[in-house]
Amino acid sequence: MVKKVVRASLVSSASIALLAGCTVTEPNNNIDKTVATNAPKNIIMVVADGMGPAYTTAYRNFVDDKNTPEIEKVVFDDILVGNASTHPAHVSGYVTDSAAAATALASGTKSYNGAIGVDVEMEPVNSVMHYAKGLGMRTGLAVTSQIVHATPASYIAHNESRKNYNDIANDFYDIKVNGEPVADVMLGGGTTYFKREDRDILAQFINDGYHYADSYENLADVPKGSNVIGLFAPVALPAVLDDVRKDRLAYLTKQAVRHLENDNGFFLLVEASQVDWAGHANDIGSAMAEMHDLAQTIEYLRGYVEDNPDTLVVLTADHSTGGLTIGAGGDYRWSPEHLHKMSASARTIAKGMVDNEMSAEYAAEKLGLSLTSDELAMLDSVSDQDEETRYSAIKSFLDVKTNTGWTTSGHTGVDVEVFAFGAGYTSFIGQIDNTDIAKKIFGLLEEKSVSKPVL
Amino acid sequence: MVKKVVRASLVSSASIALLAGCTVTEPNNNIDKTVATNAPKNIIMVVADGMGPAYTTAYRNFVDDKNTPEIEKVVFDDILVGNASTHPAHVSGYVTDSAAAATALASGTKSYNGAIGVDVEMEPVNSVMHYAKGLGMRTGLAVTSQIVHATPASYIAHNESRKNYNDIANDFYDIKVNGEPVADVMLGGGTTYFKREDRDILAQFINDGYHYADSYENLADVPKGSNVIGLFAPVALPAVLDDVRKDRLAYLTKQAVRHLENDNGFFLLVEASQVDWAGHANDIGSAMAEMHDLAQTIEYLRGYVEDNPDTLVVLTADHSTGGLTIGAGGDYRWSPEHLHKMSASARTIAKGMVDNEMSAEYAAEKLGLSLTSDELAMLDSVSDQDEETRYSAIKSFLDVKTNTGWTTSGHTGVDVEVFAFGAGYTSFIGQIDNTDIAKKIFGLLEEKSVSKPVL
Repeated sequence: MVKKVVRASLVSSASIALLAGCTVTEPNNNIDKTVATNAPKNIIMVVADGMGPAYTTAYRNFVDDKNTPEIEKVVFDDILVGNASTHPAHVSGYVTDSAAAATALASGTKSYNGAIGVDVEMEPVNSVMHYAKGLGMRTGLAVTSQIVHATPASYIAHNESRKNYNDIANDFYDIKVNGEPVADVMLGGGTTYFKREDRDILAQFINDGYHYADSYENLADVPKGSNVIGLFAPVALPAVLDDVRKDRLAYLTKQAVRHLENDNGFFLLVEASQVDWAGHANDIGSAMAEMHDLAQTIEYLRGYVEDNPDTLVVLTADHSTGGLTIGAGGDYRWSPEHLHKMSASARTIAKGMVDNEMSAEYAAEKLGLSLTSDELAMLDSVSDQDEETRYSAIKSFLDVKTNTGWTTSGHTGVDVEVFAFGAGYTSFIGQIDNTDIAKKIFGLLEEKSVSKPVL
Repeated sequence: MVKKVVRASLVSSASIALLAGCTVTEPNNNIDKTVATNAPKNIIMVVADGMGPAYTTAYRNFVDDKNTPEIEKVVFDDILVGNASTHPAHVSGYVTDSAAAATALASGTKSYNGAIGVDVEMEPVNSVMHYAKGLGMRTGLAVTSQIVHATPASYIAHNESRKNYNDIANDFYDIKVNGEPVADVMLGGGTTYFKREDRDILAQFINDGYHYADSYENLADVPKGSNVIGLFAPVALPAVLDDVRKDRLAYLTKQAVRHLENDNGFFLLVEASQVDWAGHANDIGSAMAEMHDLAQTIEYLRGYVEDNPDTLVVLTADHSTGGLTIGAGGDYRWSPEHLHKMSASARTIAKGMVDNEMSAEYAAEKLGLSLTSDELAMLDSVSDQDEETRYSAIKSFLDVKTNTGWTTSGHTGVDVEVFAFGAGYTSFIGQIDNTDIAKKIFGLLEEKSVSKPVL
């Protein structure tokens, strides 16, 4: 019989020494008792970082076949159930950062911008992953950022600031539930934080029996049902436009599921981390490519739930990024077809443009576009500038071609969409708050633990 | 027994002479047969023109009581059921105008931007209001624009262009269903189009027994159950910030319902027309004030459905306007409290600023703000400019104070929210298209006509 209240082994976490003496908020405080009673065996929480409502509509337009009279439905269209508000605790106003939003999604607690798994008093709050682990479920995460980035961090660590990546990495090993690290499977980027001069956390995981994979290929060889730490880049994975795998998130998700499946069920966090980064950069090419990576992941999960109807999948965003708008400047037009043939990200094209006579032609080839002489001349005119200037020029060029609007290099406060399917999905219908998502998952986990026969 | 297929008396409509010989699309083509079987007696369709997702979130923040730890729920939060895509027919790309969107919402038919109640072949398509009238229900509209503006026009008229206001006004009288004009109750603005030198349509309505009201006060005196044309302004009603009634749409809606209630049920179109106009002008003060007018209307309708549970209310937007974002310029802040004490619209303040020493103080008083000397100096600096410059300066000032972003003077393509409550509301849950809203209403009307005992 598992304990209902999970108490993480906080004393081993150097990063929260400042919090010593604080009690851990018991997840029961945040349990929504009204959830549907068909509690799922497995729960897969997918966060599309930065994916405000304009991103999903834009993606539908992006993949539309203009040769048919209809605009084709995309995978998101079958699974929408409502919206969630995203504001942080009042102290941080109405526009959240990814840390406060992730803490809300993970633990059901509103906090200040910057908070990782701590409340406004900087007291640690436990996540649904802690709770699931305490219930004897297997647990994991698959993300395209470094795994210590705000969203995955908030499901495992407790830190006053999202920027303390090393301390957060320590928590990934030091915080124990039932004597084990919180996550059994961790896939993403971030060797920098796990293999450091001051501490080799990677070695500690390996000593404890975790398999280590440093490439997508190696990952495929890890025996099914293993504990795994897979770190495929020093920090984040490459932008999907530049990655060797154009379905990298779907691949990592499949691999995670392969290791997590077991009779007691599992909790998996998946994050399409770089939708947000494309938004921050106001980079519409990468925004659509990262959305496509996400869409392939959700398509895989639709199939998985068809085969495993005792699994719940919830998808939402933590906030919207960039103030993306479909159309701008008074023109009733959006032309995503200009993004269809990009073979590298705008950043990589900017890097690759060197000051020579073929600089503009190189960019045109990578963009997959036939450019006019005026357009080529424009790109030529920046080829002797620095990389940031070239990058800005390419992004602006794509904004004009597609007629895309942006208002900020940061986040905006608009509610985000909530999608859910599988066992218990009806609990998420309608307008909810981001904290409700954790509360409902806590409720479903508790329901499951109550209804599960004692073995 | 009412006829199932409504054929409007098109030959009397001068405006569609060009369409002579075309057949009217039978609404049955667009009937969704899968709708829930608890068909409502009354249907109230509310369109908030231009209200993209950012508007409803912004409104929640706008009315938030900062003295409480929570952000209070607003009326929209209890009734959200999903999203609708808004794109026009492919010929017009991915960003709709209000005419194509209204034609889709009214008739279930995608058309080109500019189309009023006609399809891409310019053939007339019938609306749910035509169909309801044909079923013997009472019909009406209550809007804050001129009643011949795109949204209400598309429920009644057929015209190749939304700009042909006089022709559209003719249709309001000339198109007959069962020998009567399509709408029994018409409340909004637009005497200019109904009392013209070439034709006095108003007199024709009066001769047919319609009551005429030219003020909110007169409207209250019209006996319950009447046919009414109420036109309260030459073109549109004033912005709500400048109107004598700060609840003008709720008031018009109540009055319309008073005249429409009857044993056979009614169909009422309500439009918060000027959310869109605030968006086009990038005027955040008016955007929030028009949203408040809408919220009061929905609050009234919530009470009405509580008392009349056989009534369905559906609320959606036709598109989003202005590219509004909550936060801008890299700053994680939105500060709507600066809009709380405005006692006139930015346009009216701009008009009222005359070139004298007290010009900035006048603006500050109307804005309800204590301004710094720098802020007063900025407003002073434009007081001798033309009205448009002063208007722009006030709007920009409010954008900076609130940290509001905009990307366009036009529309954007983001999906809009769908809200529904009352009898049959479950038919609208999830991701749908704007045409689905008409199709579902057609389906509910047909269901009602089938299930209704023959008298």
